[in-house]
Amino acid sequence: MARVVVDVMLKPEILDPQGQAVQRALPRLGFDGIADVRQGKRFELEVEGPVDDAALARIRELAQTFLANTVIEDFAVKVEEKQ
Amino acid sequence: MARVVVDVMLKPEILDPQGQAVQRALPRLGFDGIADVRQGKRFELEVEGPVDDAALARIRELAQTFLANTVIEDFAVKVEEKQ
Repeated sequence: MARVVVDVMLKPEILDPQGQAVQRALPRLGFDGIADVRQGKRFELEVEGPVDDAALARIRELAQTFLANTVIEDFAVKVEEKQ
Repeated sequence: MARVVVDVMLKPEILDPQGQAVQRALPRLGFDGIADVRQGKRFELEVEGPVDDAALARIRELAQTFLANTVIEDFAVKVEEKQ
């Protein structure tokens, strides 16, 4: 079974308070040199059958209509190599 | 500035109700052939300075102590190529 990963991140122009909270906490915790943090979602889909162009197109549609809110979020679909 | 990505996912043996909810909703929405869905977090860190072994070790420590709960979550640190 193949694994397809969908990464969903807020668009760069959208404020990301979760990421900001992490970024501001880092110096207090002793970690310097991180200029920015953005937090998003990662979905790992186990796909039955071959991951061909048709399957990827279907997953892209699924991501667009269901996993991401494309008004404020961008998404990326990637096929992951088996470890 | 280099981008380092930290992916945080629930360990395989830990129940993932968010992912299950997505997986169960898919057939209703007309998407078949997805056997399993796991949902996790993706952090994009913009790192000042070079991303050498020392910087990566520091980020791995940061992920372990702060971004992931290693009792129930696994994490992966990756340097992302600039688009």
